[in-house]
Amino acid sequence: MISFRELWGQLAPIGRDPDSGGYLRYAWTPAELACREWFRAQADARDMPVEEDGNGNLIAWYGTGSGPAVLTGSHFDSVPHGGAYDGPLGIVSAFLAVDRLPRPTDRPIGVVAFAEEEGARFGVPCLGSRLLTGAIEPARAAALTDRDGVTVEAALGARPTGATGLLDRVERYVELHIEQGRMLEVPVGVGTAIWPHGRWRLDFTGEANHAGTTRMADRHDPMLTYAYTVLAANKEARLRGAHATVGRVYVEPNATNAVPALVRGWLDARAADAQTLSGLVEAVHKRAAERAARDGTAVTLTEESVSPVVDFDGVLVDRCAGLLDAPVLPTAAGHDAGVLSAHVPTVMLFVRNPTGISHSPAEHATDEDCEAGIEALAAVLA
Amino acid sequence: MISFRELWGQLAPIGRDPDSGGYLRYAWTPAELACREWFRAQADARDMPVEEDGNGNLIAWYGTGSGPAVLTGSHFDSVPHGGAYDGPLGIVSAFLAVDRLPRPTDRPIGVVAFAEEEGARFGVPCLGSRLLTGAIEPARAAALTDRDGVTVEAALGARPTGATGLLDRVERYVELHIEQGRMLEVPVGVGTAIWPHGRWRLDFTGEANHAGTTRMADRHDPMLTYAYTVLAANKEARLRGAHATVGRVYVEPNATNAVPALVRGWLDARAADAQTLSGLVEAVHKRAAERAARDGTAVTLTEESVSPVVDFDGVLVDRCAGLLDAPVLPTAAGHDAGVLSAHVPTVMLFVRNPTGISHSPAEHATDEDCEAGIEALAAVLA
Repeated sequence: MISFRELWGQLAPIGRDPDSGGYLRYAWTPAELACREWFRAQADARDMPVEEDGNGNLIAWYGTGSGPAVLTGSHFDSVPHGGAYDGPLGIVSAFLAVDRLPRPTDRPIGVVAFAEEEGARFGVPCLGSRLLTGAIEPARAAALTDRDGVTVEAALGARPTGATGLLDRVERYVELHIEQGRMLEVPVGVGTAIWPHGRWRLDFTGEANHAGTTRMADRHDPMLTYAYTVLAANKEARLRGAHATVGRVYVEPNATNAVPALVRGWLDARAADAQTLSGLVEAVHKRAAERAARDGTAVTLTEESVSPVVDFDGVLVDRCAGLLDAPVLPTAAGHDAGVLSAHVPTVMLFVRNPTGISHSPAEHATDEDCEAGIEALAAVLA
Repeated sequence: MISFRELWGQLAPIGRDPDSGGYLRYAWTPAELACREWFRAQADARDMPVEEDGNGNLIAWYGTGSGPAVLTGSHFDSVPHGGAYDGPLGIVSAFLAVDRLPRPTDRPIGVVAFAEEEGARFGVPCLGSRLLTGAIEPARAAALTDRDGVTVEAALGARPTGATGLLDRVERYVELHIEQGRMLEVPVGVGTAIWPHGRWRLDFTGEANHAGTTRMADRHDPMLTYAYTVLAANKEARLRGAHATVGRVYVEPNATNAVPALVRGWLDARAADAQTLSGLVEAVHKRAAERAARDGTAVTLTEESVSPVVDFDGVLVDRCAGLLDAPVLPTAAGHDAGVLSAHVPTVMLFVRNPTGISHSPAEHATDEDCEAGIEALAAVLA
């Protein structure tokens, strides 16, 4: 039986940036397609036929019985210069958990690789699972573009098919994932819920002007409004025990010697409940608008995606926690499990992250904890 | 004799972005090369031989006498989405001023187009005039790269030659330019000085992390330090009657759902004297470092270019102001005239800018004021 270390080592070099040590595995780019080839090879080695669902998701089936199926898996795609574990650990663990199961029964197990979970290329996270569950219209998904103007339809090579009958055959979904905060002090925990979260685009507009000659009093500088809003978002989130981040910015004309015409920032906000989240976003918008009035600029807020709170299946959570004698914990990160849970009873398993660092080359879990995760997943599947 | 409107109209479409209405005329790109073709055609039409100085600068000579020469001109290159007047007005006015002069005398007049005045492509403003005057080493200039990694040597098609004997023949330099603040209430003014000014790069480094799951207290978010510094620079400049701008920013990984690892901002700072300028930059750096300590991030300040105060030739300023009955004024913008003035007596003429807007598609001067500028330049040359 192949070891975790050996299987993990096969994936490690794919899409790794030699400078940052992080991964550039955007959906349907050569690095992510190479991961998919590895997926097919693993399925072949286990005599598991691979199904493509027409939405960019791959499912390798263990057992062909007609009984209700269990799905387990995660995603290959990464954020820019992301870590090795976020996504791939769930797929590698799924194959290795299957290796630990007895012969196939009437209840098939599907190992799944979902497409574009991070939304790093086309802007909509969990795109593959949203298409499969019908949570996004195939026509809308097909027309999404990346930063170079390439559409999902072009990247996929076809218009996505959207919801198929696949989920009618599925009775449970289990996703194993590296934990992403510092909330777990033992190797494995059971996920209870996903915080409501979303992305909002803030467009700050002012008046482009010469950075040298324009009197300070004559300026309409949207960079000031942006900067104030970044600090306000941080303060408002801390006040509420919520999370707010502005990690992406775009500037026009983005020249050293020009007052900008436009500064665009993206607000990522998350909170334990929907009311806190909407209160946070409203407070940030209000403070941005107040500052814009002082700066002689304007701000508009556009909701790009919002995911409501997800409570995983209570019965399943309790059974897993009891079976594994593991603690339960929520997460503030979105996952395909959150999308699936609206359609089939779903649960997540988390593997300990000693530093809490994620979405970074420094993301890490020990081999021992990963092996404990595989054993736990095998126990749950069994 | 061709009119200002007609000649201006020939240049207007070159490099104009149809969406913004601004210009994308970076040095040695097709749009700027098309401007140079226009320059050669104008020189040919006036029987003015064109000299290339090996540094990317073009000089069209009116008169071939052996007496000391007068240079006049400006630049074609623009900031991203810049205005039509900043640069080209000085070259168009030079040709039209020559048209108003009597037959060539023993004192030749050179109409000059300097390369890369804005520094928008290779980061060093006034690159052409710095090379011509020996203010930058040709080897250093040759190795400068644009955002795509193209070197000056590759863009120019050869290693720059640096200082030549050209300036030994030159007795005066006069540059006509659109005014860029709102300091001129009559059509034409005479420049007295250029404020000391410079560009500093601020690198804010923190720890890339997941925007959803990382507790606020565990973050090392350089975007916060950057935002605080933008606001601090604005305040410190206002306190000193100086100018400070952060108009360009670069973020890694620049993803919506990741706390950044790096935020890089460029500070453009200008003041009436060198002491105020250095005090401003020191204050910004100090406040950035204080905030970095609170954010658990780090900041480094790198001087990219600094231009000391330039006082134009006092005799020439007084003579021009008397001849034209025009007011005198300083400018906070760098110009090739500032570089030349260290080597030959130099003066600038400014044409009124009703809104003060510059480095923007909205930059504008009336045709009447431009014609007044041409008459003034012709009078000064005569």
